[in-house]
Amino acid sequence: MRQLFPGHGASRGNALGRARVRQPHALEVAEERIAVADVPGEIARLHEAIGMVRAELRELRARLHGALAGEVGEFLDLHALLLDDPELLQGLDGLIANELYGADYALRVQRNRLAAVFEGMDDPYFRSRVEDIDHVIGRIHAALHRHDAQVSGVAGEILVSDNLAPSEVARLHARGVLGIVTAGGSLLSHSAILARSLHVPLVVSAPQALAQVNDGDVLMIDGATGLVIVDPDAEDLHAFRERVREGKRERRQLHRLRREPSRTLDGVDIRLYANAESRGDVAEAHALGAAGVGLYRTEFLFLQRDGLPSEEEQFVAYRDVVLGMTGRTVTIRTLDIGADKADGSGLALPSEPNPALGVRGVRLALRRRDVFTTQLRAILRASGYGPLRILLPMVARREELLAARRLVREVGARLRREGHAVAENIPLGAMIEVPAAALALPALIDLVDFISIGTNDLVQYLLAADRGNDALHALHSPLHPAVIQLLHQVLSTARAHGRPAAVCGEMAGDAPFTPLLLALGLEEFSMHPGTLLEVRRAVRAHDLAALRRSAPALLRARDQAGIERWLATAGAGDNARMNA
Amino acid sequence: MRQLFPGHGASRGNALGRARVRQPHALEVAEERIAVADVPGEIARLHEAIGMVRAELRELRARLHGALAGEVGEFLDLHALLLDDPELLQGLDGLIANELYGADYALRVQRNRLAAVFEGMDDPYFRSRVEDIDHVIGRIHAALHRHDAQVSGVAGEILVSDNLAPSEVARLHARGVLGIVTAGGSLLSHSAILARSLHVPLVVSAPQALAQVNDGDVLMIDGATGLVIVDPDAEDLHAFRERVREGKRERRQLHRLRREPSRTLDGVDIRLYANAESRGDVAEAHALGAAGVGLYRTEFLFLQRDGLPSEEEQFVAYRDVVLGMTGRTVTIRTLDIGADKADGSGLALPSEPNPALGVRGVRLALRRRDVFTTQLRAILRASGYGPLRILLPMVARREELLAARRLVREVGARLRREGHAVAENIPLGAMIEVPAAALALPALIDLVDFISIGTNDLVQYLLAADRGNDALHALHSPLHPAVIQLLHQVLSTARAHGRPAAVCGEMAGDAPFTPLLLALGLEEFSMHPGTLLEVRRAVRAHDLAALRRSAPALLRARDQAGIERWLATAGAGDNARMNA
Repeated sequence: MRQLFPGHGASRGNALGRARVRQPHALEVAEERIAVADVPGEIARLHEAIGMVRAELRELRARLHGALAGEVGEFLDLHALLLDDPELLQGLDGLIANELYGADYALRVQRNRLAAVFEGMDDPYFRSRVEDIDHVIGRIHAALHRHDAQVSGVAGEILVSDNLAPSEVARLHARGVLGIVTAGGSLLSHSAILARSLHVPLVVSAPQALAQVNDGDVLMIDGATGLVIVDPDAEDLHAFRERVREGKRERRQLHRLRREPSRTLDGVDIRLYANAESRGDVAEAHALGAAGVGLYRTEFLFLQRDGLPSEEEQFVAYRDVVLGMTGRTVTIRTLDIGADKADGSGLALPSEPNPALGVRGVRLALRRRDVFTTQLRAILRASGYGPLRILLPMVARREELLAARRLVREVGARLRREGHAVAENIPLGAMIEVPAAALALPALIDLVDFISIGTNDLVQYLLAADRGNDALHALHSPLHPAVIQLLHQVLSTARAHGRPAAVCGEMAGDAPFTPLLLALGLEEFSMHPGTLLEVRRAVRAHDLAALRRSAPALLRARDQAGIERWLATAGAGDNARMNA
Repeated sequence: MRQLFPGHGASRGNALGRARVRQPHALEVAEERIAVADVPGEIARLHEAIGMVRAELRELRARLHGALAGEVGEFLDLHALLLDDPELLQGLDGLIANELYGADYALRVQRNRLAAVFEGMDDPYFRSRVEDIDHVIGRIHAALHRHDAQVSGVAGEILVSDNLAPSEVARLHARGVLGIVTAGGSLLSHSAILARSLHVPLVVSAPQALAQVNDGDVLMIDGATGLVIVDPDAEDLHAFRERVREGKRERRQLHRLRREPSRTLDGVDIRLYANAESRGDVAEAHALGAAGVGLYRTEFLFLQRDGLPSEEEQFVAYRDVVLGMTGRTVTIRTLDIGADKADGSGLALPSEPNPALGVRGVRLALRRRDVFTTQLRAILRASGYGPLRILLPMVARREELLAARRLVREVGARLRREGHAVAENIPLGAMIEVPAAALALPALIDLVDFISIGTNDLVQYLLAADRGNDALHALHSPLHPAVIQLLHQVLSTARAHGRPAAVCGEMAGDAPFTPLLLALGLEEFSMHPGTLLEVRRAVRAHDLAALRRSAPALLRARDQAGIERWLATAGAGDNARMNA
């Protein structure tokens, strides 16, 4: 029977398919007690899970081949050994039988008991063996909840769930999900941003759908209007086909914008740059009429390889980007790697307890002068082929800028002596992503020619919320008054000192944020080329003067709800044009 | 022969003892080539180191006993196995013989080769096995540089070194070092702060001493004047004894300050609170005339135990602090634990890639309502016994404060219904340590009754520099213009809204920073009781009005050097009184 559930459209697009419902389950294991009568069943359930893990380990081992099979096999055997350990097993059975703990909670308690023994040891190596225990316990835990793994079967289906972390959205997209409906969530969450940039239709705030849709129901969702329909009738199906046609028409219209200027309703030109990493990105950026490359990431040259990339290899890569942009400016960011990303590089960095707060970006560059100098030589040599700027990541202090400027000067002088063509006065800029640099920008700005605000990291540090930590995805939001106010302050400082300022974080490429950034004074956006036309359309739908006039109201917002209210009113733009 | 080397006194106190010199050695292994003639020697050196590691592992294994000996032994055997692995060894020998790499660099290269194989695998478990390789390689590396380990023998000696990380200062103190001389360093580094709070005499900026002092030389150092004397003569020894006597006299004078007010030269009373954790801290705080307990940490109740502390156990602990302070205010901070500290607790938190940016403090409390409610019940019951305030850690948003206030209200109402004595209007405060909370304080302050600025974490997040990461100890400094300006802004906001504001980070307990904090507007300090009298002496040596007048110059400083210049002039205080 046809049923209709309203939600909020968070990522445009239509989907028609069978529903896959994932009911929420408690991720945190609280102390849970079972009835005496359930003890044998619970113990059996646990041992079944252990059996599954044992089979898994065997299977993994069988898949091994090559020179390292022996050693890796040893580790697997060791885990199998732990799995058979009487201390582990009897302890678990005892906790269930005597304490009446559920299997999950028993696993936790037993894990802590074993871990305590290792952690009490003096040798850091033994202490770290807790990880092996965690691996084994984690595998058992996963096996106990094997039904969760069914989410892997979403290809060609529509997922209905309580809420999703950004990483899950990415995983679902990769697995071919048609669309997503969530009971909670908001339009401006990171998950919604991601769904939009991956073009996965998403409806949020549809709690009725989660409560009433069943696995296998035929579902139709509209990511623009937020409508969720179960068992659509003939009329619905007709409308669906119509909307799919409309979608194609819209994409064609969007496509036409590639030759149009990024100009507001009141005639102000906004510069839209592309973030690029590959040759394909560069070609697309050029074809879409990007003002240039606002962020060329160089990490890929250093990852997944033996040793370090040579000056020549880097030079060719940088030169080709410059040539590919035919006279438009290319901004090359120097190596932005830390202990969390360095494993597949030739850098061999020591691991760090909090790599996001560690030796990375310019901090690493100034400690590894050899690596930094080679990269600067390659970049400066590429400057002979077209306009180019250098962007330094993770800048926090004047001292770092002074040291980097000196090195750029020295490398340039040397290259000229060696007979290379090196441009004069290559602009040197700083990523503004460390809060101290944003706050004390007036004390740094004389040392930079331009800035680029990395909102992803800036938000992470301002909120003290790891952007990779799914448990914090609600907290890690740019819609905090501190973020809004600081962005405004940074842009004002840059304008007062005549320094160009761009935003190159995710925010810049997400059209719903465009009016907010325009209101705060941003005139340069840098984003993945895939979202450039949508942002251009948003720019063209807004009156810049009107947005700037409404900025004080935005800056007065005291919480996320207040900022969302501003976006819903002042930021709504010329809807006629948005949809045109 | 008597020699005299000048340095800067960074931590007062005198020491006389034999020198232990630690020459700097490159921590980063750059590509290093050796002569063909040196190949056999280098290979021999490497194998000697491998032999040492093998013996070490054997010894460790022999020390094992108890139920886990079998499993742990397995791990050790595995490492011994890796050590004997022909792929590892021949690879190393080959790199030395064919590439002419030094042993250190060969270790790095070989490590990366092996790691690349594991990292290329799909299963995260195999990828993580790189750690085992790193353990083994790390042990060999350490064995190659075994002389470094001699630092462990500093008991009763004076260490002469290039520079020290804070963690090394702590380690040296624990091992009974008499004093430290460093070639680099500054008075306001974290290492210096730590040396002062541990009362370890420290002379910094004495490069000549490092260059010319030899192991075993008799050394005399004065941590006040910064003088380093080799082979002191009779007169020096006489002066030393005199200064030791002076030191005792000074401590007696300091002791007399325990009954004096913490009043500036111009008659303003500053409130000095104590940070406390143990019964001993509370007793000391009381005896020294602390205004109250500004920060009572509750983590210790949760660590190193099975399960969670009961309401009754917590209640008794909190009540006893309140009783111990006999009517002076006690500020109890609710549980401030994250994934990095939770291992020995009954909380069983999932591990996080960046625990400093993870689910901790109030974020955890609001997810573990069971734990939070029990703690609040215990705290509110203790409020019946004397003045008490509640302090919430890691606050970032209004939503968190609203949720916590609601819970406190509900718990209070329930306790009263149960017949408990609960104080009316217990002040609820927020730690200001997340930058977003500091920046957007005007949007939060209506929801708090007081604030306490946690400068340790605030600096860590503002600078994006882990305070536990020794490699960043120079960067992790409160002397950044952004820190100074933000502290000033927070204190001004608090004053404008009539909310008491304290600083409870390390800065508050370090007397050289006292004038800076007074100039910025701070009137409440909270610190370890061991440093309270020194801060009181510093307060009494300064004219508050004069400091406030010089604040604009401090706020104009563009870098650390500028802030240090201000401290050296405006912050110098009434030296006569400082030494009186």
